[in-house]
Amino acid sequence: MIKEAIYHRPKNNFAYGYDEKTIHIRLRTKKNDIDEVKLIHGDPYDWNGSKWSHERNIMMKSGSDELFDYWFIAVQPPYRRLRYGFELKAKDETMFFGEKGFLSSQPEDDIAFYFCIPFLNKADIFNAPAWVKDTIWYQIFPERFANGDESINPKGTLPWGSAEPTPTNFFGGDFQGIIDRIDYLKDLGITGIYFTPIFKAYSNHKYDTIDYMEIDPQFGDKAAFKRLVETCHAKGIKVMLDAVFNHSGYYLPQFQDVLENGKDSKYKDWFHINEFPIETEPKPNYDTFAFVPTMPKLNTENEEVKGYLLKVASYWIEEFNIDGWRLDVANEIDHSFWREFRKTVKAANPDVYILGEIWHDSMPWLQGDQFDAVMNYPFTSATIDYFAKGTINAEHFSNIINRVIHAYPEHVNAVQFNLLDSHDTPRILTLCNGNKDRVKLLLLFQMSFTGTPCIYYGNEISMSGGADPGCRKCMEWDESKQDKDMYSFVQQLITYRKHNNAFGNSGDFSFIETNNEKNYVVYKKSNANETLLFILNNSAKSIDGEFAFNGTIQSSENFWNA
Amino acid sequence: MIKEAIYHRPKNNFAYGYDEKTIHIRLRTKKNDIDEVKLIHGDPYDWNGSKWSHERNIMMKSGSDELFDYWFIAVQPPYRRLRYGFELKAKDETMFFGEKGFLSSQPEDDIAFYFCIPFLNKADIFNAPAWVKDTIWYQIFPERFANGDESINPKGTLPWGSAEPTPTNFFGGDFQGIIDRIDYLKDLGITGIYFTPIFKAYSNHKYDTIDYMEIDPQFGDKAAFKRLVETCHAKGIKVMLDAVFNHSGYYLPQFQDVLENGKDSKYKDWFHINEFPIETEPKPNYDTFAFVPTMPKLNTENEEVKGYLLKVASYWIEEFNIDGWRLDVANEIDHSFWREFRKTVKAANPDVYILGEIWHDSMPWLQGDQFDAVMNYPFTSATIDYFAKGTINAEHFSNIINRVIHAYPEHVNAVQFNLLDSHDTPRILTLCNGNKDRVKLLLLFQMSFTGTPCIYYGNEISMSGGADPGCRKCMEWDESKQDKDMYSFVQQLITYRKHNNAFGNSGDFSFIETNNEKNYVVYKKSNANETLLFILNNSAKSIDGEFAFNGTIQSSENFWNA
Repeated sequence: MIKEAIYHRPKNNFAYGYDEKTIHIRLRTKKNDIDEVKLIHGDPYDWNGSKWSHERNIMMKSGSDELFDYWFIAVQPPYRRLRYGFELKAKDETMFFGEKGFLSSQPEDDIAFYFCIPFLNKADIFNAPAWVKDTIWYQIFPERFANGDESINPKGTLPWGSAEPTPTNFFGGDFQGIIDRIDYLKDLGITGIYFTPIFKAYSNHKYDTIDYMEIDPQFGDKAAFKRLVETCHAKGIKVMLDAVFNHSGYYLPQFQDVLENGKDSKYKDWFHINEFPIETEPKPNYDTFAFVPTMPKLNTENEEVKGYLLKVASYWIEEFNIDGWRLDVANEIDHSFWREFRKTVKAANPDVYILGEIWHDSMPWLQGDQFDAVMNYPFTSATIDYFAKGTINAEHFSNIINRVIHAYPEHVNAVQFNLLDSHDTPRILTLCNGNKDRVKLLLLFQMSFTGTPCIYYGNEISMSGGADPGCRKCMEWDESKQDKDMYSFVQQLITYRKHNNAFGNSGDFSFIETNNEKNYVVYKKSNANETLLFILNNSAKSIDGEFAFNGTIQSSENFWNA
Repeated sequence: MIKEAIYHRPKNNFAYGYDEKTIHIRLRTKKNDIDEVKLIHGDPYDWNGSKWSHERNIMMKSGSDELFDYWFIAVQPPYRRLRYGFELKAKDETMFFGEKGFLSSQPEDDIAFYFCIPFLNKADIFNAPAWVKDTIWYQIFPERFANGDESINPKGTLPWGSAEPTPTNFFGGDFQGIIDRIDYLKDLGITGIYFTPIFKAYSNHKYDTIDYMEIDPQFGDKAAFKRLVETCHAKGIKVMLDAVFNHSGYYLPQFQDVLENGKDSKYKDWFHINEFPIETEPKPNYDTFAFVPTMPKLNTENEEVKGYLLKVASYWIEEFNIDGWRLDVANEIDHSFWREFRKTVKAANPDVYILGEIWHDSMPWLQGDQFDAVMNYPFTSATIDYFAKGTINAEHFSNIINRVIHAYPEHVNAVQFNLLDSHDTPRILTLCNGNKDRVKLLLLFQMSFTGTPCIYYGNEISMSGGADPGCRKCMEWDESKQDKDMYSFVQQLITYRKHNNAFGNSGDFSFIETNNEKNYVVYKKSNANETLLFILNNSAKSIDGEFAFNGTIQSSENFWNA
């Protein structure tokens, strides 16, 4: 038994309150090292004389990655208090593992040895809005989706699709355009739209805000935005906006005031100005997003800034009934701000989804007190590497995916935002070198995986594009140039996900087989009522093969004959 | 290289903001497995073309426990952003370890491989009051310290020290008694008093509160308490009170109202009543502390309860100028409540110390948003097991102590509340079977260890007593029965700690040698100016021996000849 490989620590992905009655416990051990794990558990105050009263239950192996096996059990402690440890068996060896380490015999009179979940307080249980886990997202970059009102085109607007996108050109996409095309989206089947920023800003991407309380005039006015939200809601589509709170734009009046008045500006503490006079070269002498001088970092520890941004957060919920906030560069803002943000947002409407843009391990933001989910980039990179680029093999892919699954609690996984590409990355068709079969595998895996999938606008009709700005082309509305086959494929996947419970978040995901030689993966999604089996051939040829599965196949679908 | 043993995850004891400029990074590896560890680190946005700009620095081995070595480095990222990974060398093997696992060559174009501390936000940095780390605590159980006003004796009060303590008897200890004896405490050298509860309650221990806004009449009135605080402050002694917020007493009027009016009580949501009518047998059908019917658990998620308790928290600070809150059964109350509690307390006075009673791993409460410290029971049990009971050997002791040190960030360790015993445990003299030399070793280790030591009243004059209620005897004021030698010993230790910086929290602790056979430990406390070497002989005999130490001994003290 490799004791050093065994890991557990409570109050994160390894032990968490799942609901008001249930605690989930996971354990990590060296891969293929341990034969059986039992959870020893009881109430810390339940004693029989000098002996602690406890039970013992077998844990199931819930997956493996390159180095580790993961074990899982759900328990419902009657008094909502739990002390627990693990009994591990490997060949002839039995060990007991608790907070204080390893023992060869179980301590029955000293609960200090054990791990502790002291009390299952409702207030601390992670709790995302119920609607999220059934949502199919669609991401719109508003400048490039549809131009429905030429009267508000910004200066220098080019004819729709007449040029390749550049960092600075404009094509006049607006709210009316989206409203006009809402039936297209409804028909596709999506049930939520994530809009990149819509507030008044300088650039075409609008990540450099000038006024968080105003709609950018190129998109329309507040009345138009209200119509857009109402139109979406009437079609059963949720609306998520982008909150760019880490930094403002250069032309935010408060930053302009600081530029003008230096240390005498009443807004000097709105930012992190390291010295006066302000300089932008060679590197800005104020904190910025990356080293971009036009994106000064906001001081979210300043009470005025906090008050302003929290007002923004509630205003668009209360006045326009939006359903979600996606938080740009969420990891660089203080946790303290995000805790207040959550309180403000959930007070305005507890059903609003809070989604952080974080590319790395995000457990510190997903404890229930800050975000409901993050953009699931570890999922993205593994999926792209296997299906699009072919840079990892089937086993490596399943290792990473199992690692992704075990990195967060189950209820977090169910609402994770699973994207394949975005305005920040090349499009999947381009990543697949134009191979549409690979795109379909990507989409099938995404749609059948735990979490909520997001389709980047235009992927459903096989739009291509490299890294920013290439991925930000105008949406193709010329039907003769739209890939109708891909559209039907996406539509069919969405229909499957909606009509087969186990396809979506009511099914537990697990790999059944990964085959490096023939390059395929087999996984299942299952619940108490049904098991769906997915066989994804990631090779260029058709495959004959067998794999072990207990059960009767009741029906089968070939997605390629859709 | 045993890759499975290597552990790191940011935003806890393994990686944390130490101050506004500094990030501490730790790594855990299998004991004696790795020869050298380097930290690879840089700003996530600092690129030279397609190559990430980064530095590489050697980490130092900061300690070892039974299974693991721990490595440490402090870095000051110029833009307060950090991506980092580890280069590990073992014999001829070199590996790179990051958030995504292990690689045999270092990725220079993909920062997603690395760990991330996205931004060092001041608001998130753990920040305990500066005075705490230099405090020597003294714990007073008010009913048993001194009776200075017989006119307020509770009914049935026994003559001072005339009987053994029982769960229900009274001896009339009060505030005037403490005020009268303040010079005794000043003379001893202590600089902070932790009072077990003083609010109106039913029992002699007062953990069953009747009114959180009133002083228990047996101790005096609010004027007397004010005099007590002022007297302490005049003598340079801080005052910490006990906040028993997990549960109230049975006679709290709000609980009495629920008992009387059942589901019609307007206070029914102040508690967790699982069904009506309320029953106390065989187990209470409402949540309680442990299964004690007279201690109903308060519903700290209820807005009224929260408002009431937070008012209590600020009232005693604002009106009486107390310096600390010790939080009883702190682990069973929701984190959400404690976050609001911290905000309320620090708004009333940022210099108030918040100390949680938690017996197990407490990292989730010590992230800067909840407590300043916890009662350091893992320290207690290791120290008692080695010096008092002799149930573990020197090496085992040092393993546990190193584990304790590495379980929390450095700035948390500096303010941890290091107790040897309390009103909840047998006294140290009793644990040592009356062996005063062992008591002295315990006290020397406690006083020279990182954190803030606490002396349980009467230990300084060699009072004895077994588990509650035995440990709650009346303080011995008959000088002929006080152990003057022990008093001088404690006084001398305190003087040393006050006058030698490295003795206290300005010195870094590390073991130099542990000897199981001869049963001694050698450790040092050192800073830039001095190194103090401690040689503790835990055996019954004197020892001749040698140990390796580079340097010149400038002076030596034999604490036994004090």
